[in-house]
Amino acid sequence: MKKMYLGMGAAVEKDGRFLILKRSGSKDFAPNAWEIITGRLEEEESPDDGILREIFEETGLETEIIMPIETGFFYRGGKEFPMAYISYWCRYISGDIKLSVEHSQLKWASIEEILEEPTMTHFHKLFERILQLKRHLSSDFIFH
Amino acid sequence: MKKMYLGMGAAVEKDGRFLILKRSGSKDFAPNAWEIITGRLEEEESPDDGILREIFEETGLETEIIMPIETGFFYRGGKEFPMAYISYWCRYISGDIKLSVEHSQLKWASIEEILEEPTMTHFHKLFERILQLKRHLSSDFIFH
Repeated sequence: MKKMYLGMGAAVEKDGRFLILKRSGSKDFAPNAWEIITGRLEEEESPDDGILREIFEETGLETEIIMPIETGFFYRGGKEFPMAYISYWCRYISGDIKLSVEHSQLKWASIEEILEEPTMTHFHKLFERILQLKRHLSSDFIFH
Repeated sequence: MKKMYLGMGAAVEKDGRFLILKRSGSKDFAPNAWEIITGRLEEEESPDDGILREIFEETGLETEIIMPIETGFFYRGGKEFPMAYISYWCRYISGDIKLSVEHSQLKWASIEEILEEPTMTHFHKLFERILQLKRHLSSDFIFH
């Protein structure tokens, strides 16, 4: 058992479409690729609180968690940076998007569009699972 | 952003009932309390792989993940032991249970029984969420 970093990602839904962001062209890694909102856990917060904070910091949007969907592990850069992650399905509540310098563009995309976007292949499993759940759950499903 | 430990827990279902284990009476912490299967992530494994490994090590059962359900963060013991966790809903596939010395007893319990068990209050949110999902998903639901 070792310590590691914990990353979170969020597929934020609004009226059946999902927020995707285009990485700035000046990024060292994957410039101009489309992605979902991601961030890393600070100490003394739950992953749930962490992803809602990251969504707000990156976009200014208030959102709620529908449920965690997918987990994984990778080395970010090198062996000194072990990172587990949790990807969430979230729902827009309110707010207007203010993009940071990290991103050059945004889009509310359908799952079909995301599954056809070649720079988003590593998010496909997340969206395929959400698509499967949406066949069973009402559009306002939330844990109570 | 800091490094932390990652714990996992599993609510393992078999024919609508869930595996709960009674902690040995010799345990320093919470002797004789009922709990689900828990464990900690090793490096170079995903949380999904980690919880299936822990279930097998603790019980000898082969299982599959239905989905992650709940996440959280706590300090286990002291500030030097920050731990995030993911709790899963899993399904029994095969095997006969071999209990380790960590546990004195096991039971396949209904969610109603678990929600009435006073030593399991910190698992109630997990089982309430599973109960809610079971109203919408078929009994053999799995991500494909």
